[in-house]
Amino acid sequence: MEEIFIVKIGGKVIDNEDARNEFLSKLAKIGKNIILVHGGGKVANQVLSSMGIEPKMINGRRITDAETLKVVTMVYTGLINKTITAKLNSLSRKSVGLSGVDGVLLDAVKRPVKDIDYGFAGDIEAQGVNTDLLLNLVKSGYTPVIATIAADKNAQLLNINADTVASTIAAGLAKKANVNLFFCFEKKGVLMNAEDDNSVIKLLNSENYPELSKKGIFSEGMIPKLENAFKTINQGVKKVIIGNSNDIEQFFQENHAGTLIC
Amino acid sequence: MEEIFIVKIGGKVIDNEDARNEFLSKLAKIGKNIILVHGGGKVANQVLSSMGIEPKMINGRRITDAETLKVVTMVYTGLINKTITAKLNSLSRKSVGLSGVDGVLLDAVKRPVKDIDYGFAGDIEAQGVNTDLLLNLVKSGYTPVIATIAADKNAQLLNINADTVASTIAAGLAKKANVNLFFCFEKKGVLMNAEDDNSVIKLLNSENYPELSKKGIFSEGMIPKLENAFKTINQGVKKVIIGNSNDIEQFFQENHAGTLIC
Repeated sequence: MEEIFIVKIGGKVIDNEDARNEFLSKLAKIGKNIILVHGGGKVANQVLSSMGIEPKMINGRRITDAETLKVVTMVYTGLINKTITAKLNSLSRKSVGLSGVDGVLLDAVKRPVKDIDYGFAGDIEAQGVNTDLLLNLVKSGYTPVIATIAADKNAQLLNINADTVASTIAAGLAKKANVNLFFCFEKKGVLMNAEDDNSVIKLLNSENYPELSKKGIFSEGMIPKLENAFKTINQGVKKVIIGNSNDIEQFFQENHAGTLIC
Repeated sequence: MEEIFIVKIGGKVIDNEDARNEFLSKLAKIGKNIILVHGGGKVANQVLSSMGIEPKMINGRRITDAETLKVVTMVYTGLINKTITAKLNSLSRKSVGLSGVDGVLLDAVKRPVKDIDYGFAGDIEAQGVNTDLLLNLVKSGYTPVIATIAADKNAQLLNINADTVASTIAAGLAKKANVNLFFCFEKKGVLMNAEDDNSVIKLLNSENYPELSKKGIFSEGMIPKLENAFKTINQGVKKVIIGNSNDIEQFFQENHAGTLIC
């Protein structure tokens, strides 16, 4: 089976041109099959502001009304996706920018309204991933670069959380390939002590996780990421690494950077 | 050899939701290999205006400065491309939205400045078309939907004229497939009398074209389109049809609508 590395990026690597180009230069040289999933960073908010639209967030998640949906579609699938894809191509890593819309890569449904109405936000499941299209492109030597907008059966565009897209694609592909899932963020990994950037937990597994979790080590934002990581492992993903985008090359090495979850 | 129909749309079919959906509903039902190339319509100007940027045009061509480039990239490769692709998918025609950037589909160079500085406008040639990627997708049952933004070797995004993209892709594919090229516009075809919408010239070829041209039949805007059409025929494209997007189904029939150039 093909070995595939799904890399999710967001934050500074999207917003800052120098940081982005440095990251992509490293990524371009890695001689492995990669699928890159990117979030939207702060660019969407800047474009919304320039159009006089106030960004709406609740608990760190975007509320996507009709106007916001247009803008995030333009920014994620347009500006950011093509900028990243063009850069990788210029670095001789042949890449194809896609969104969940393309080839129904992600078969999405609008999130039902419970306590909070997230607007045009979507949910996806592993069986709704068009793995044939991804495997076709990977086997043809392309790096798919994926923006996290998808559509439902009625062509309604929907905004999907980027962590969810990366995990769901990983889980979807796990039946047909050896899949590894790398989450890049601003910290060096999952920290034992939030105050100490060097207190990275090298390994989390079903043995030490419940114990550390009980001790209240993990922040509120980290818990869903970790639960999600363990879920994808149960769905057949070989390993998950959470770490800093600066260390992307070391994610691929035996003595990996970041926190390994397996 | 595979038979492929390259269909270029622009104008009302992009700007007006009802016209667009009607056109795409017709297109979705046509049981042929299609590659759809779309222009940007007036949507880019609306977005530019909402951001307080004045659209700049000379002789009907856009002057693409850095700010305008960002907006047209967002609108063409983001909003319009994904809206069309999602709609075709919802109509059970599996489609993949791409731009010239993706897989270096179109290897572009910035247009040299002569009399007019068009800014970040690009030129492409038939040998710079990634025909492998297009044929791979077509043979896998997908309809490529192509937005007319590409990049140069240094990842500089460039805006390319949509007629040029359609012709160049047609010429590029002509060595590997039987290619037909359909230009959809607002008139029923090339008119013998500009005042009479029903005076469509059914056939233009190397015999009657020079004669009609000498008579001054063709408008200033039509001449480059026709020269271009004859050029693609010389490059191996089987036939070119110029006609109204409402008649798209009849383009595919023996007794075609519009003006046939061959």
